[in-house]
Amino acid sequence: MKKIITFGEIMMRLTPPNYDKIIQTTSYQATFGGGEANVAVSLALFGHDVEFVTKLPTNELGKGATRFLQKQGVATNFLARGGERLGIYFLEQGMSVRPSQVIYDRKDSSIALADHVDFDWDNIFEDAVLFHTSGISEKARQLTLTAMREAKSRGITTSFDMNYRSKLWGLEEAQEAMKSILPYVDICFGGYLDAVNILGIKSKVQNGELTAIYSDLFSQLALQYGVKQIVCTNREIHSVTHHTLTGYLYSNETKLISTSAHSFDILDRVGGGDAFAAGFLHGFLSGWSEMDSLNFALGASVLKHTISGDSNAVTVEEVQAYLVEKGKSAIAR
Amino acid sequence: MKKIITFGEIMMRLTPPNYDKIIQTTSYQATFGGGEANVAVSLALFGHDVEFVTKLPTNELGKGATRFLQKQGVATNFLARGGERLGIYFLEQGMSVRPSQVIYDRKDSSIALADHVDFDWDNIFEDAVLFHTSGISEKARQLTLTAMREAKSRGITTSFDMNYRSKLWGLEEAQEAMKSILPYVDICFGGYLDAVNILGIKSKVQNGELTAIYSDLFSQLALQYGVKQIVCTNREIHSVTHHTLTGYLYSNETKLISTSAHSFDILDRVGGGDAFAAGFLHGFLSGWSEMDSLNFALGASVLKHTISGDSNAVTVEEVQAYLVEKGKSAIAR
Amino acid sequence: MKKIITFGEIMMRLTPPNYDKIIQTTSYQATFGGGEANVAVSLALFGHDVEFVTKLPTNELGKGATRFLQKQGVATNFLARGGERLGIYFLEQGMSVRPSQVIYDRKDSSIALADHVDFDWDNIFEDAVLFHTSGISEKARQLTLTAMREAKSRGITTSFDMNYRSKLWGLEEAQEAMKSILPYVDICFGGYLDAVNILGIKSKVQNGELTAIYSDLFSQLALQYGVKQIVCTNREIHSVTHHTLTGYLYSNETKLISTSAHSFDILDRVGGGDAFAAGFLHGFLSGWSEMDSLNFALGASVLKHTISGDSNAVTVEEVQAYLVEKGKSAIAR
Amino acid sequence: MKKIITFGEIMMRLTPPNYDKIIQTTSYQATFGGGEANVAVSLALFGHDVEFVTKLPTNELGKGATRFLQKQGVATNFLARGGERLGIYFLEQGMSVRPSQVIYDRKDSSIALADHVDFDWDNIFEDAVLFHTSGISEKARQLTLTAMREAKSRGITTSFDMNYRSKLWGLEEAQEAMKSILPYVDICFGGYLDAVNILGIKSKVQNGELTAIYSDLFSQLALQYGVKQIVCTNREIHSVTHHTLTGYLYSNETKLISTSAHSFDILDRVGGGDAFAAGFLHGFLSGWSEMDSLNFALGASVLKHTISGDSNAVTVEEVQAYLVEKGKSAIAR
Amino acid sequence: MKKIITFGEIMMRLTPPNYDKIIQTTSYQATFGGGEANVAVSLALFGHDVEFVTKLPTNELGKGATRFLQKQGVATNFLARGGERLGIYFLEQGMSVRPSQVIYDRKDSSIALADHVDFDWDNIFEDAVLFHTSGISEKARQLTLTAMREAKSRGITTSFDMNYRSKLWGLEEAQEAMKSILPYVDICFGGYLDAVNILGIKSKVQNGELTAIYSDLFSQLALQYGVKQIVCTNREIHSVTHHTLTGYLYSNETKLISTSAHSFDILDRVGGGDAFAAGFLHGFLSGWSEMDSLNFALGASVLKHTISGDSNAVTVEEVQAYLVEKGKSAIAR
Amino acid sequence: MKKIITFGEIMMRLTPPNYDKIIQTTSYQATFGGGEANVAVSLALFGHDVEFVTKLPTNELGKGATRFLQKQGVATNFLARGGERLGIYFLEQGMSVRPSQVIYDRKDSSIALADHVDFDWDNIFEDAVLFHTSGISEKARQLTLTAMREAKSRGITTSFDMNYRSKLWGLEEAQEAMKSILPYVDICFGGYLDAVNILGIKSKVQNGELTAIYSDLFSQLALQYGVKQIVCTNREIHSVTHHTLTGYLYSNETKLISTSAHSFDILDRVGGGDAFAAGFLHGFLSGWSEMDSLNFALGASVLKHTISGDSNAVTVEEVQAYLVEKGKSAIAR
Repeated sequence: MKKIITFGEIMMRLTPPNYDKIIQTTSYQATFGGGEANVAVSLALFGHDVEFVTKLPTNELGKGATRFLQKQGVATNFLARGGERLGIYFLEQGMSVRPSQVIYDRKDSSIALADHVDFDWDNIFEDAVLFHTSGISEKARQLTLTAMREAKSRGITTSFDMNYRSKLWGLEEAQEAMKSILPYVDICFGGYLDAVNILGIKSKVQNGELTAIYSDLFSQLALQYGVKQIVCTNREIHSVTHHTLTGYLYSNETKLISTSAHSFDILDRVGGGDAFAAGFLHGFLSGWSEMDSLNFALGASVLKHTISGDSNAVTVEEVQAYLVEKGKSAIAR
Repeated sequence: MKKIITFGEIMMRLTPPNYDKIIQTTSYQATFGGGEANVAVSLALFGHDVEFVTKLPTNELGKGATRFLQKQGVATNFLARGGERLGIYFLEQGMSVRPSQVIYDRKDSSIALADHVDFDWDNIFEDAVLFHTSGISEKARQLTLTAMREAKSRGITTSFDMNYRSKLWGLEEAQEAMKSILPYVDICFGGYLDAVNILGIKSKVQNGELTAIYSDLFSQLALQYGVKQIVCTNREIHSVTHHTLTGYLYSNETKLISTSAHSFDILDRVGGGDAFAAGFLHGFLSGWSEMDSLNFALGASVLKHTISGDSNAVTVEEVQAYLVEKGKSAIAR
Repeated sequence: MKKIITFGEIMMRLTPPNYDKIIQTTSYQATFGGGEANVAVSLALFGHDVEFVTKLPTNELGKGATRFLQKQGVATNFLARGGERLGIYFLEQGMSVRPSQVIYDRKDSSIALADHVDFDWDNIFEDAVLFHTSGISEKARQLTLTAMREAKSRGITTSFDMNYRSKLWGLEEAQEAMKSILPYVDICFGGYLDAVNILGIKSKVQNGELTAIYSDLFSQLALQYGVKQIVCTNREIHSVTHHTLTGYLYSNETKLISTSAHSFDILDRVGGGDAFAAGFLHGFLSGWSEMDSLNFALGASVLKHTISGDSNAVTVEEVQAYLVEKGKSAIAR
Repeated sequence: MKKIITFGEIMMRLTPPNYDKIIQTTSYQATFGGGEANVAVSLALFGHDVEFVTKLPTNELGKGATRFLQKQGVATNFLARGGERLGIYFLEQGMSVRPSQVIYDRKDSSIALADHVDFDWDNIFEDAVLFHTSGISEKARQLTLTAMREAKSRGITTSFDMNYRSKLWGLEEAQEAMKSILPYVDICFGGYLDAVNILGIKSKVQNGELTAIYSDLFSQLALQYGVKQIVCTNREIHSVTHHTLTGYLYSNETKLISTSAHSFDILDRVGGGDAFAAGFLHGFLSGWSEMDSLNFALGASVLKHTISGDSNAVTVEEVQAYLVEKGKSAIAR
Repeated sequence: MKKIITFGEIMMRLTPPNYDKIIQTTSYQATFGGGEANVAVSLALFGHDVEFVTKLPTNELGKGATRFLQKQGVATNFLARGGERLGIYFLEQGMSVRPSQVIYDRKDSSIALADHVDFDWDNIFEDAVLFHTSGISEKARQLTLTAMREAKSRGITTSFDMNYRSKLWGLEEAQEAMKSILPYVDICFGGYLDAVNILGIKSKVQNGELTAIYSDLFSQLALQYGVKQIVCTNREIHSVTHHTLTGYLYSNETKLISTSAHSFDILDRVGGGDAFAAGFLHGFLSGWSEMDSLNFALGASVLKHTISGDSNAVTVEEVQAYLVEKGKSAIAR
Repeated sequence: MKKIITFGEIMMRLTPPNYDKIIQTTSYQATFGGGEANVAVSLALFGHDVEFVTKLPTNELGKGATRFLQKQGVATNFLARGGERLGIYFLEQGMSVRPSQVIYDRKDSSIALADHVDFDWDNIFEDAVLFHTSGISEKARQLTLTAMREAKSRGITTSFDMNYRSKLWGLEEAQEAMKSILPYVDICFGGYLDAVNILGIKSKVQNGELTAIYSDLFSQLALQYGVKQIVCTNREIHSVTHHTLTGYLYSNETKLISTSAHSFDILDRVGGGDAFAAGFLHGFLSGWSEMDSLNFALGASVLKHTISGDSNAVTVEEVQAYLVEKGKSAIAR
């Protein structure tokens, strides 16, 4: 069976219940999440053989994170153990016109301070067909670059989510890191802002339609770094709990394609991008057409917005049913 | 005082809190529900003298169901006791574009395996003016037919909700059962799909308006089985948590009448049809016009969608206030 | 530092969780609230030095109310202690088309039966620049009038929210009370219904636009009672959980001005008016223009509708960010 | 079937969860209770036909209390409706060495202000064989006396629990009230303190054993007021959550008898006395010997201490099993 | 690595929170458990490579059970899928003198109706060194016997817990089943009642000490069926939440040995026997002495009584620390 | 009014509910605590004017900690703001024979990295009569020493709790720190282990009674460092949730005195020592005798063990009532 490797950070996520603000709450819902872990969970639910690779502290919090991954069917055979702490992030859920807030408390986490000796890439990449990681933070940047090169050098398809977070690192550091990684990337998840701000690509299309702008930007990106597929969503925010998403894909063969626009109410917005990436990778691994993969990716992402927690909890069948019914579903009984 | 009898199954309903999926949850909200029990609860809240008749196990779960009925003012003097288990159903509450899911675990419940000797219809129907039941499952089919005949033979008005559930029995068995029962029915709750799929009625109206189609189908149904009133809603599903309902009634005198369309957000969709039936029966028992009864039925049903649990929790006054204010209400203070 | 005094009643608020009706619930969320206390909390969050003045029983419930105020940074140096009970109100949260219900159980509360000797106005008003109170109930009417006169006589700016509650006192008593207080008021919060029903002002504008009507009514009110600023919102109720608010202000210099209309979903509607008043007073105290103050007031009020409990929980920065982004905000991360 | 009437007050009981103090809590568990209502619930669970008579407000809180009674199978056919409010009491649950605290907020409750015209004793006492009430407060004192006389004059067995609460009325008023009621009482629940403090009976036994003192006091009480049976427990408090109870009964035939001493841990101590009274009345109504009734009463009371809420939730079979196994029970599976 | 196989039923366990009775509760805590699954979970926590083998329905409840096992590190590679339902059991937690109650609702579960074709023993037992199962119910009796024979014939050590549950099958059927299985058993968990009632062994020791009686009974059992080790606890029940446990082991070499007696308060008593079995098997697999294994088994069992849910949640280190400190531990900080 | 200053760290405390282990939990109860903050809260509840001084991050978590302090009446006028994070600690509550576990995640907290310029001791110590701090960690060691000297130099009584935590720093560093601070200490809280392990004091009493040993050790400690009073408890741990405490005090005038031994069940053990210190300081500040102060300290500490959270929630009256009733209290009603 073909194995997928995702590599990155998993954090404890603490969320006040019932849309309380952090200054109001007396309890937190606790779950775990992180970009690449979320992708791994989705892919396991879609039936794939996935390993999530990170470094976790040996304490009960590290064990909790491990159990969370195992519960979803994500393999944890290559976890490194040690370091000082599990990263934490506090999520204050917004609603209506009140925005959500994130407080990161992930400094000096075990993975952020991990070392090359913690990971034996020969073992990890044995039998792997796909490697996915992201550019969330500066800390593990050197490790990420190494992992990407190791994957690429073994002929494994590489997938990368640009995922820039301004609370975590400065623009310049991010620029430098992303530019060093992209030459090793086959499938790149990242949108307009990433292209323009991080990569400094300038669109020659002024005042054009979104498709024209995307087409221009992404063809430059593909050309410049040799990326095969660039996949992203455009998100319109009507209110904190009501969005519209459209999926876009650029590749050299297909050029730019896009899905229809999907509008929906939101239960939990975090991880929507990771669910999108996992959906697309599922289509890719299943040998589907780019259009089918893109549609599936968007469906998976939309459904994730109705699932509590960072990671998706739906199956291939549920995504496909959604793509047919678009939420106009009676109770199945 | 005029007594109403409803007969059917009451189950324990287990629902994960906070829109969690079943695979995510570590607890369940527990309540009780079932078509005829829900109708009984509504009618008790509307001030009627109602008996709910079923068979329940003698254990604590059966006692729990009894206490649930008593709490709402439903009389339980004719409950049969025994059998092996209380039926259970798990409800995964959907939201936005994610559909709700029901898992039935009601096989071999005490009522499904009940026997004719469990019910003394002479006693049960003494002083009764109305009998209501439904066609939810195949199991108790023979008992339901007997009860209907017994009620009809005593001159009691009979009310029947077709309520077909494909997870519970096949179409053919349902067809046979429904056709055997309908000749004893005065008031029939059931819509387009019931008429076409279950009863095999074909509309001569092609591409017409909904009212024309309903008028055609229901006049055939009334003619064929001697049903006096056919009452239903048409439900437009914009999303899992936003619907529009319109009420329809056909009778030989009135022909087809309908309410305005009501749109609303949803807290708990289960039991909306039972609240509608109960609302209509309240109008009927109060001697209201068919139009007034239909409007009240729709108002009761709409409000039910904002109430947690299977059964309604509003009074006649609350329904009437809603019909005036249509939700554009300030806080009463 | 300039001190603000608010004077009124604070009650325990008991709310069934999860939109349950009172007849369904087995638990209550407990918080505290009351018009003037809510204004005090908002102003403390906006960085002001605020004292809330009331009378509380010496028992644990009175202590709980005190702790609630202290937690938010409201000073409680002039609380009177004694009397028999803390007022309670039960709030049944409506949603969609089902209205919220309030049951007041505040009769004979410590503040309702308080006496002039309980409050030493010389001490209380030392260093104060603003006094705010409201006309919620008849009980403490004489005390309210005294407090207003004492404030006015010391040259303190006086602010008054008409806040008529029909469940608390009759129209006639309210009329008499309000008319006796208004001559001492500088800033008056109160809308169309207050002007027409309580004060008996008749609009000469027939079938005009809202701005024309407000302009007419409020200019009469200002003239008749010498009120300097009249500030209010107009609330359109689309459903119990979706409203549109527009803010209006009349003053002799500015005449009538208004904000744009803001539409939003609602988590908790109670205290929206108090948040509005506090927002305006913050602008007033900050020396902002009337237009800026009015916009800030509306923003604060809108955000309050997304906060659980009676009182607001947002900062000046959060209100200002909302006025820019209008809820179309990505997660800050 | 023989009907039992109990008459008194039922309140909403609000309890912070998890042994929190009132000043700590942000929520309350809500249930209902009151001496005579608790006795009624127990008797219904023991299979009796019981009516609880009181006056309740017409609001949702009054309806909630009614539903609570109905759920347990207590009939509510003679409830008077009206008045202003439902009495409330706050219970802060102690544990270990920290005592429980009660805050009564029951002044001016509907039953406290009820009138003779609210109750039609002819109807209420039709078919009744037993009447039970208590001396909890001064407010409804005249009503209680009337009810007692009405019961006695119809030859109904009367039962009275002295239940003095110092937070509710003064000793003198209680003395006068109790002395006026006792001549109508057949079965009296009340212990050492009631006899000595309320009734002013002096024991001639000095430094004797408890049985000698009780024998002396209760024989005087029986003689003086014509009471047939005096039944009580002696409670040794080792800690707030560990007690020992022993039951005592005096009657003219049997003289003083007592049970063995039962020690146990406590989940919820409130209502232990009411469960005891109900247990004894069950034995009395079943025609059991005084010794059997007393043992059953103590068993019922002990088990109540392991049940959350004011009222018992165990059956006759569970009490009898306890009297055999004394808690040394394996899991029944 | 040496693999362990356990085979049996896993059920959903539904428990009312806070010691509520089933007739009181409005929610259930949901977890999963069953004798052999509990043993598997313990062994996984102790660091072993364990497979749990059963048949589960394909619905969300079956998935939930799978996720529960995976979370704890139990492998689920040989789960059969299909059948109708997941067994359920309701646990009413007793406390103090009130016993716990179990309601089984496990009839016709997927495993109870499973067939030989569902399990490929060749695959399952590859690399296995230990097989553990129990005699909980009659349904899967033939499957259990087959599995035992298949294990034995491969030279795998077999472990069997007699675990008789009177609510599940009659004594005679149990006797016949147990007697047919025991000849294939190496390590047998079962106590006095099993030996006497199920196996009909008669002790020649009258009125002797427990060790003498156990020695006599177990030597007969070992002789008659060729069992190598018989291991059990003796449980003294002081109250429902306070027990004393002593461990006993009989083998042909060692004869009877026993641990000291451990007394402790209880949070959750279910699964105490399974934790004991797992503890002993851990010692056995680690090559420890019988005495060390027995002490560890008892320590693991005692700690399980302080863990919520059916299965243990402690590590080898925690058991060993307990055996030293016996609960007289300061907070580790 | 006389002001008290306490200086130290306040952390967020996260505790799984219902005695769940960290690896089991899906939510955390959130509160705040830390040795000197706990002392401050107690003293505020006892009616004193207390400032807690620390450095907190400017984010919502820092605000939450501030609100927690304000709620209890602790003044926060001298809080420094800034730094990166609020320290967190996870508390796994043990019960019966299972020990509690603490995971500290407090590295690089705002106070740990605070600087001298963050605190203006002139302002802070104005009007202060007592300064209390402790030796919990190495990080803020230099700041603690400075604060102590500043207090001492102003003639303020200094109080110090040795509170060694092995998870936070090594023995050697602690020794050096403590020895540098003790010369500035008037009242020292610390017991046998502190004297022997940290300070290296050797007892000349061998095998003697505890009082003899304490007397010897503490007289040396007093002599060596010039400490005026040494106060501590001796804790016997019967199980994790049942302890016995005895209080001891040594001073040059009184020599060694001790309280009686108090045994009790435990709800929450953390902060028992801080409640003890606060109790003693209350007596000291009230001018009570050393014996009265010591008894009050022990009563406050015992009651704290029945209070959820780190800090006490009882008043002077509740402590005094406990000292009379020793938990043998009926419900106050």
